[in-house]
Amino acid sequence: MAIEPDDDALATALLARQRRALAKAITLVESARPDHRLRAQSLLDRLLPHTGNALRIGISGVPGVGKSTFIETFGMYLLEQGLRVAVLAVDPSSPLTGGSILGDKTRMEQLSQQENAYIRPSPARGALGGVGHQSREAMLLCEAAGFDIIIVETVGVGQSETAVAAMCDVFLLLQLPNAGDELQGIKKGILELADLVVYNKTDLDPRAAAIAAGQMRSALHMLRPASPHWQVPVLQASATSGDGIAEIWATLQNYRRLMQQAGAFDERRKQQAQAWMWQLIEAGLQERFRHHPAIQAALPQALRQAADGTVNPATLAALLLDAFQR
Amino acid sequence: MAIEPDDDALATALLARQRRALAKAITLVESARPDHRLRAQSLLDRLLPHTGNALRIGISGVPGVGKSTFIETFGMYLLEQGLRVAVLAVDPSSPLTGGSILGDKTRMEQLSQQENAYIRPSPARGALGGVGHQSREAMLLCEAAGFDIIIVETVGVGQSETAVAAMCDVFLLLQLPNAGDELQGIKKGILELADLVVYNKTDLDPRAAAIAAGQMRSALHMLRPASPHWQVPVLQASATSGDGIAEIWATLQNYRRLMQQAGAFDERRKQQAQAWMWQLIEAGLQERFRHHPAIQAALPQALRQAADGTVNPATLAALLLDAFQR
Repeated sequence: MAIEPDDDALATALLARQRRALAKAITLVESARPDHRLRAQSLLDRLLPHTGNALRIGISGVPGVGKSTFIETFGMYLLEQGLRVAVLAVDPSSPLTGGSILGDKTRMEQLSQQENAYIRPSPARGALGGVGHQSREAMLLCEAAGFDIIIVETVGVGQSETAVAAMCDVFLLLQLPNAGDELQGIKKGILELADLVVYNKTDLDPRAAAIAAGQMRSALHMLRPASPHWQVPVLQASATSGDGIAEIWATLQNYRRLMQQAGAFDERRKQQAQAWMWQLIEAGLQERFRHHPAIQAALPQALRQAADGTVNPATLAALLLDAFQR
Repeated sequence: MAIEPDDDALATALLARQRRALAKAITLVESARPDHRLRAQSLLDRLLPHTGNALRIGISGVPGVGKSTFIETFGMYLLEQGLRVAVLAVDPSSPLTGGSILGDKTRMEQLSQQENAYIRPSPARGALGGVGHQSREAMLLCEAAGFDIIIVETVGVGQSETAVAAMCDVFLLLQLPNAGDELQGIKKGILELADLVVYNKTDLDPRAAAIAAGQMRSALHMLRPASPHWQVPVLQASATSGDGIAEIWATLQNYRRLMQQAGAFDERRKQQAQAWMWQLIEAGLQERFRHHPAIQAALPQALRQAADGTVNPATLAALLLDAFQR
């Protein structure tokens, strides 16, 4: 579909780094309305040549780890380096539980007032493609609007971390130096996703932080590294005092340089883009399947028969698939 | 499709508990040939009323944990209780790596010679429905052939454990009492699947086993229990001496009784059957998508464009989905 004149003007304004245009464009890609989806696609196609120039940093950690304060301090530091910083949120809260975990409460008060920072709260849920789909497109819009760093944050719940790792160049896991927290982090399988582990709030109890960091290093040594070019470092920081923030940025720059030299940086993005396409295809197939009139008519009985054990699930699946393509 | 006369005779022989009929039927459900799939479906539909009476026990553990010896000892103990025991394997080895991890080497020599035991090695891979599809249908066939206990074994690699947990009434995780093994078990997220954890080979170092079991109990307490009706026990056993085997069987019987009283036993099976149907539908949709002539023609370029970043993956997904249903 060709881009509408209004949306073309929107694209031009966004490329001119106008905040209102960016906000409006993100609202468009977040919309689940079919006509909005078509317009969003045309807009993204128009802007795609101007994307890809930012460093995409995923940040996760359980509630209470101090994520907002960390991103505020880290973001302010990046601004001081002359960089433009956008912060997006991927919220794993389900339609069932309702509210957003990342919330609408006033967060990152200082950062949000800066000219060169842009903070976007969590999108509404329920659109095609599952957790993170809208954030991925919002990320591209921020890149087209000239941001150098995109921080995508999420909490350590559900599949949101996998979604964030699948759209970022580097995944930073924030940890609390509490006894037992190591295990909590490990249990969800997110250590495999982490390119960098940072213990936050280490000023509260430096000794506990050092012990926790040591345990984490041991745990990381037991995992197969995600990349042969990178051994996951474990750093310590205090977002309130600012300690360790410069080292984290230096480490991220080092990561980018090493991965780029190895060709792994671009390779990861290529694989992410293809995986994203497949994810949307899978979601689209299921969407079309579930909304097909023949399926809607036959599905309730099939689910009942599967549960009752009166018909083999494989038989039911075959019948439904045939009804879908008849 | 109506069942063929030959397959009807096969069903009758299987219901009469003839081993050769069971072996032949399993070979049929393991086949990926479309005509075999249709015949297998008719056969399963015919036999379905005679299934569901066994206790389905999933057993997993990393290579070296002594799984074969444990199943041999445990299986012999069950035979002594007058039970008929079938052992199936779900092998996560990929088509890429080739060989089977569970292997064709002589395993469970004693058990395999018993009249009331049936051991089936891993099926060949690559059929519709992903890891475990064939084993699920083989399990139903074993139930129709009058086996009281179906043991489904797998190794702690890939998605095979999730597949096995999704087809069994109870999931038993075998662990080695080694330092650090706790973490290895946890990292793959299988602790959440376990209904029972058993430390094997505890006769080698009883003190290490007691410590490891204690650490495991602590770790389990940090996880949300999979069922409100059951706190996952941590037991110790030696498959070579037979120590602990009787207690494991008593625990499994207790589990079945408690879950049945709570209605959770049947509920789990109902959910598993529906989830299985959905899994086959998803696999079928993808299969049909990938084999569609329009998709085969357009896919290589789409993958290239996604990787190059020249077209937005969402646009490519929408184009391919439209081509599929045109």
